Amino acid sequence: MAPFTWSFRVRYHECDPQGIVFNAHWLAYFDMTMVELLRDALGENAYRDLPDTHRVDFVVGEATVRFRAPARFDERLTLEARVERLGNTAMTTTLRALRAGELLVEGELRHVFVDAKTWRKTPIPAAIRAALEPYATAA
Amino acid sequence: MAPFTWSFRVRYHECDPQGIVFNAHWLAYFDMTMVELLRDALGENAYRDLPDTHRVDFVVGEATVRFRAPARFDERLTLEARVERLGNTAMTTTLRALRAGELLVEGELRHVFVDAKTWRKTPIPAAIRAALEPYATAA
Amino acid sequence: MAPFTWSFRVRYHECDPQGIVFNAHWLAYFDMTMVELLRDALGENAYRDLPDTHRVDFVVGEATVRFRAPARFDERLTLEARVERLGNTAMTTTLRALRAGELLVEGELRHVFVDAKTWRKTPIPAAIRAALEPYATAA
Amino acid sequence: MAPFTWSFRVRYHECDPQGIVFNAHWLAYFDMTMVELLRDALGENAYRDLPDTHRVDFVVGEATVRFRAPARFDERLTLEARVERLGNTAMTTTLRALRAGELLVEGELRHVFVDAKTWRKTPIPAAIRAALEPYATAA
Repeated sequence: MAPFTWSFRVRYHECDPQGIVFNAHWLAYFDMTMVELLRDALGENAYRDLPDTHRVDFVVGEATVRFRAPARFDERLTLEARVERLGNTAMTTTLRALRAGELLVEGELRHVFVDAKTWRKTPIPAAIRAALEPYATAA
Repeated sequence: MAPFTWSFRVRYHECDPQGIVFNAHWLAYFDMTMVELLRDALGENAYRDLPDTHRVDFVVGEATVRFRAPARFDERLTLEARVERLGNTAMTTTLRALRAGELLVEGELRHVFVDAKTWRKTPIPAAIRAALEPYATAA
Repeated sequence: MAPFTWSFRVRYHECDPQGIVFNAHWLAYFDMTMVELLRDALGENAYRDLPDTHRVDFVVGEATVRFRAPARFDERLTLEARVERLGNTAMTTTLRALRAGELLVEGELRHVFVDAKTWRKTPIPAAIRAALEPYATAA
Repeated sequence: MAPFTWSFRVRYHECDPQGIVFNAHWLAYFDMTMVELLRDALGENAYRDLPDTHRVDFVVGEATVRFRAPARFDERLTLEARVERLGNTAMTTTLRALRAGELLVEGELRHVFVDAKTWRKTPIPAAIRAALEPYATAA
């Protein structure tokens, strides 16, 4: 199954004196990719409306990033995301960043769903689970 | 009268491919300086506690930055701030950034006090005004 | 004459605990707008290639930002830029940020052209001047 | 053996609309910690001078971050770093962030030493290895 993909350009201020995207920005790129995946899965304002619509929020529990090659200012990157695992309260997503087909960076994010009020772990709401399943590897 | 001063080092990720602090970060440095000025004037958690303690927040209405010379990674900068004007609902602060006595960047921030609930302009609370007056140019 | 315009969405990490775009990020938005204006005026990699193609770089000499209303996560902003003045070594650009027609932020940037090697002020190259004139207010 | 430690305050613009440090900033905090560890090990400008002094640079090959509890504006964090492994061309560092003794975030960074000119993997220079060994777990 094809992963979710979207693309954007590297901004000047995301690059450091080595002339390459500073390593921490890749986690921001991953976060932006989750926003777009949720928009694709759940509609226009899905990420913003999680607390109001579903009484949940979701937070990053663990992140891993492997750096293969640097990206530079103004380059167009394509980000791919696959939902690797949809557990009871957590989901794991695999992300890859490519430039013209070359893999630059890859990693995983584990998100935990929490109650929007108490911030305690809470099961993934059924509507969200149903919307995310098409993005899962072994759907 | 001596201005309020504090100092810190330039971080690597604040510098861009030209090897210098990216221009937008200077507004962040100015903001950090206001946090420290309020700490000095009003106590440890003054900035964070504005809404709870004084039922106000303060927001930037206008910012001007003039760039004289660049700053680079790991350099120690000294930031100076003087309260230039304490109006009814607004305050203007003059800021200067120096490296070993050399002026690198200077500018002004105009802050507006707003009600913490409605975000409408509100007069500067008397306790805040009294605490800021010692930092005013013509105090 | 119509100004140069482009648009983009506010990213989550550009917003602060007040839930609004942190003030310093507006200077980054202005910078991104200059990149797009130069792309429009001078071609695909214009900003990146300034040093190689024209032996110049351009740096911000002064920036002013006036904040009218806040922007929030995921909102689509339209940025407008007009070249206000093309001097011998400097250019002044007026920028406005709108959301659905409402003016949120406006400001000016004064850029100075410098020699890419010495970083001394240098006249705006004729090819760049010619390409920017169509974006000037009184062109 | 005690790890290397240093501390700093969370800045306002590092926090997101949830009111907590945005996840990507933790990688920046880790990077800042490596700068301080190298300063401690190799002297004042060690990080900045790696290319000139030792003809090497070092880049992040892999990063992992586990988020236990959030940090908020103005809180004072203590970062600990231990060199876990000093290989031929790579080093692995374990990092922990604490607030008043409570573990908030932990992770690992794998850095690869590269030739400052060619950016190819290169053995860790003997002087750097000697200086880092006291920070290694099993030194």
